[in-house]
Amino acid sequence: MTGITSREIHLVSRPEGLPSADNFSLVETTVEQVSGQVLVQNLFMSVDPAMRPPLSNGQTPLNEPMTGGAIGKIVASDNPELPVDTLVLHRFGFREYFASDGKGLQAIKVEDEPLTTHLHILGGTGLTAYGGLLVTGALQEEENVFVSAAAGAVGSVVGQIAKIKHCRVAGSCGSDEKVDYLINELGFDYAFNYKTTSISKALHIGLPEGIDVYFENVGGAHLDAACGQMRPLGRIPVCGMISAYNNKGARSEGVTTLSNMIYNRVTMKGFVVYEFNDMREQFLTDMRTWMAEGKMKYQETIMQGIEQAPAALIGLLEGKNTGKMLVRLSEAG
Amino acid sequence: MTGITSREIHLVSRPEGLPSADNFSLVETTVEQVSGQVLVQNLFMSVDPAMRPPLSNGQTPLNEPMTGGAIGKIVASDNPELPVDTLVLHRFGFREYFASDGKGLQAIKVEDEPLTTHLHILGGTGLTAYGGLLVTGALQEEENVFVSAAAGAVGSVVGQIAKIKHCRVAGSCGSDEKVDYLINELGFDYAFNYKTTSISKALHIGLPEGIDVYFENVGGAHLDAACGQMRPLGRIPVCGMISAYNNKGARSEGVTTLSNMIYNRVTMKGFVVYEFNDMREQFLTDMRTWMAEGKMKYQETIMQGIEQAPAALIGLLEGKNTGKMLVRLSEAG
Repeated sequence: MTGITSREIHLVSRPEGLPSADNFSLVETTVEQVSGQVLVQNLFMSVDPAMRPPLSNGQTPLNEPMTGGAIGKIVASDNPELPVDTLVLHRFGFREYFASDGKGLQAIKVEDEPLTTHLHILGGTGLTAYGGLLVTGALQEEENVFVSAAAGAVGSVVGQIAKIKHCRVAGSCGSDEKVDYLINELGFDYAFNYKTTSISKALHIGLPEGIDVYFENVGGAHLDAACGQMRPLGRIPVCGMISAYNNKGARSEGVTTLSNMIYNRVTMKGFVVYEFNDMREQFLTDMRTWMAEGKMKYQETIMQGIEQAPAALIGLLEGKNTGKMLVRLSEAG
Repeated sequence: MTGITSREIHLVSRPEGLPSADNFSLVETTVEQVSGQVLVQNLFMSVDPAMRPPLSNGQTPLNEPMTGGAIGKIVASDNPELPVDTLVLHRFGFREYFASDGKGLQAIKVEDEPLTTHLHILGGTGLTAYGGLLVTGALQEEENVFVSAAAGAVGSVVGQIAKIKHCRVAGSCGSDEKVDYLINELGFDYAFNYKTTSISKALHIGLPEGIDVYFENVGGAHLDAACGQMRPLGRIPVCGMISAYNNKGARSEGVTTLSNMIYNRVTMKGFVVYEFNDMREQFLTDMRTWMAEGKMKYQETIMQGIEQAPAALIGLLEGKNTGKMLVRLSEAG
């Protein structure tokens, strides 16, 4: 076939501090599908906090299409294993179309759930929460759990899994509306707006016995408060530190309470989602069960069109989303 | 028997910052040995950084004899299991004599080694280094190891074990004399005086490939520098944070580099020596072998007399010791 016109987002300069629209460029290109390849039309793409550090540390190349989780549909195929209309999960976000020999494309089977859930609670975001809490965090029933960025895509799943495991759950977030959502929609025991509340005081109120598991998404002042209140043999799975990502070298505010790790024998451990790849089947079974039982809810913030992808990422870093931040890349999605 | 006169050290006020002699009192008392008891004369006592936080956090009671590791000799006995002349390891330091029903006294068998080694390289100090490095730190052969307070009692054992395991070893310490000792006596690959050197720059020079295991004794600026240079799957066994102990709430200088724990999947874990009690036989066998082979050296800083015990603890917190800080409590020792 002849080439198809596609638009994609390039990083054109490295941000210092919060990224701005100037750091990105919308580029029109022509995608050619050659023999043996499939042509993929992207439907939705994910925007994640983890995308921020590579913009500054050099891992994201300049003047090339950016990457990130997305769902696409095969719209032309010269590969019998990936026929037309197959839905595929992949890392080639930030573009409308691309050609592929099939490498890095994972065909997904969509059951009753909305397609977009495969980019959050049934995708890497959900598996991050599931594995980070249950494996890295080694959660036990009836423990005291604190999760930061609790109204975000990962944090909201963490809190709900902890409630399913009969834990006492406190969450932090950045607005009073999110506090209301966490308590009244997701069933958190306690939630607070860190912008208007002392984190340390809030934790003493919300988890008066101390913290067994702190699921770390924020870093800096959050970790400073939480680490000082960890209980004996407490665990801190470190998923992210969004408060640091706009700083040079991803440096956080100073954490001064780490000596509590000694006497209380606390473990803090960074992890990445691919550690949990072998749990994916059990994860999907559990999550679909919990969704059907009404125990696993979600929200999405969806922006429209590839040209909005930079604004979606910037908005995420400013905390403008509740739940998962997505970009719809095609009206077919 | 009639009572015997003994002197002991009491904490009489809680220090803020570095303790001073005023915080302690030398008290004369009379020890009575009653039926079924033994009378113990202390020979040597240990002084440890871990003694500092309890002085301020309330764990060390006021106006009572302080406690800490010590070696004593049974000088009178009404207990057939602990005859006269038995040497015992126990936690009743900071006093010259005490009576006991035997609880908390561990008889020790001294082979060719000096008695005092049972208070450091063959005692809890050595087991702290051994278990913390090999179990908590999960050391592998030929890794890159950084140890802080490397000329101290724990740090010097850590560095030597790492060298025995064919690792590249860098250490920090607080004087140029200690740098010389680490490199020329203990065989460290690299050592630096943190008071006159950028820790971060020194680590880049000493361990240019990054750090697989950082054995943490100091905290604050040391951790800030080391955490930023941890390699993938690095481990930080947290033994102590002496830089924080004189601060209110044992707060350290701020640590800003913890986001490196995420992408490099670093684990930081606080531990205490009793986790390794079941390894004690293997530990003693290994240490005696290494000592006989000339691969495990030590230094002692010994102060004379119970009245010097507060000065020994204060001096330790100021870094005046090289190797193990001890107090000789009896001329019989």
